[in-house]
Amino acid sequence: MGEHLGRRRWAIPEGWIPGASTGPAPALTSHETACLLNVGDADAHVEITIFFEDRDPAGPYRVTVPARRTVHQRFNDLTDPEPVPRDTAYASLIESDVPIVVQHSRLDSRQAENALLTTVAFAGDE
Amino acid sequence: MGEHLGRRRWAIPEGWIPGASTGPAPALTSHETACLLNVGDADAHVEITIFFEDRDPAGPYRVTVPARRTVHQRFNDLTDPEPVPRDTAYASLIESDVPIVVQHSRLDSRQAENALLTTVAFAGDE
Amino acid sequence: MGEHLGRRRWAIPEGWIPGASTGPAPALTSHETACLLNVGDADAHVEITIFFEDRDPAGPYRVTVPARRTVHQRFNDLTDPEPVPRDTAYASLIESDVPIVVQHSRLDSRQAENALLTTVAFAGDE
Amino acid sequence: MGEHLGRRRWAIPEGWIPGASTGPAPALTSHETACLLNVGDADAHVEITIFFEDRDPAGPYRVTVPARRTVHQRFNDLTDPEPVPRDTAYASLIESDVPIVVQHSRLDSRQAENALLTTVAFAGDE
Repeated sequence: MGEHLGRRRWAIPEGWIPGASTGPAPALTSHETACLLNVGDADAHVEITIFFEDRDPAGPYRVTVPARRTVHQRFNDLTDPEPVPRDTAYASLIESDVPIVVQHSRLDSRQAENALLTTVAFAGDE
Repeated sequence: MGEHLGRRRWAIPEGWIPGASTGPAPALTSHETACLLNVGDADAHVEITIFFEDRDPAGPYRVTVPARRTVHQRFNDLTDPEPVPRDTAYASLIESDVPIVVQHSRLDSRQAENALLTTVAFAGDE
Repeated sequence: MGEHLGRRRWAIPEGWIPGASTGPAPALTSHETACLLNVGDADAHVEITIFFEDRDPAGPYRVTVPARRTVHQRFNDLTDPEPVPRDTAYASLIESDVPIVVQHSRLDSRQAENALLTTVAFAGDE
Repeated sequence: MGEHLGRRRWAIPEGWIPGASTGPAPALTSHETACLLNVGDADAHVEITIFFEDRDPAGPYRVTVPARRTVHQRFNDLTDPEPVPRDTAYASLIESDVPIVVQHSRLDSRQAENALLTTVAFAGDE
């Protein structure tokens, strides 16, 4: 450790926060998450921009991932400068001042049994 | 922003549109989606070619992803030059005139409870 | 088209064929699949080697992906030189004489409602 | 075979071991797994470091992947130097002395029907 790992630009083309949930909150609330990992010794200052199908992008949303920490950032919890709309297709661009690693996941609990998806995000070249 | 991110050639070897669904349409209709993200300032003109196990490829299907927009293109909705058959194994090649990022996802609602999968597509070298 | 896309060496560390299924066969039989895409003009001759936790590897299993075709190869259907055991952890190495693209997926129907997973496989450097 | 495939540094930003399960153990116990594949002729000595949101990292946890073997290592089973906490967000860094390939998966059986996710981990440059 002590070295950086990852990239500074990441993209997640899939985005959809289901507007309904079943099961106890917050663990089983339908949510989308960007898992951010910073294995380095410097804090990562991250900006997230949200893209839509029919309007200009929103953001940047600012998140700090401290040195040698992970942040599992729910898109549901992004509110500044505006909430991420539910039941709406979106995509995200994640930019950091130091290398990080990004993974996307979703818990969909619209029905009685939950469904999960995940993927490592697309890493830009640097 | 204002810069490009991504690649111009992408592939998704997995493809299968379940022929049956449960739950309210269109949100819970079984579907396959190519999520396309264009963070650049120029529109992306995209051609999708569909490959099969036992016949020649179909397409190209043409999709435009405007500058700074995402398009979540359901394969279910591709009809020109021909619909994508249900309950049939296929794969897709996605080619764009400017760099984009591509993620594949599926909602399978054949049974009472839905199932989800996703992955960032394979990015060709450029 | 007419050009190659992909790599010649791929790996899928996750492998597990559930030994039980519910729902109509073959669509809802629990299965693991390697989705192979060959967008090129030459047939791909593919060899799959299966790795285990506690014994020497099995294979090679031989699969041909014709030019401009996809093959969704269920590991369940590999029988020569030996079947892939159920309820057993395995991994796979996929080697082709021309570039292909590989995606891994599983349908688990051990319970009443199916579950799905997928990822683009790891592409070796060339 | 006989050659190496993969990388020596891998990251999995998503990590969450559900604290509850339904269905017969151990197959349907909620679990997170790092699937490690070593196609080479030398044993891989692997160190896993676990990162958290609000405390210093734990580890290293040591795992050996013998030559030409796979190990599907459940994070649930890591106990030395300390267990991985349940219902807690974490991330992992996986470092090996020889190239390996890493895939992340989870079975979530908190509800009656299980849910699955997987992705090839992020491979560091070398």
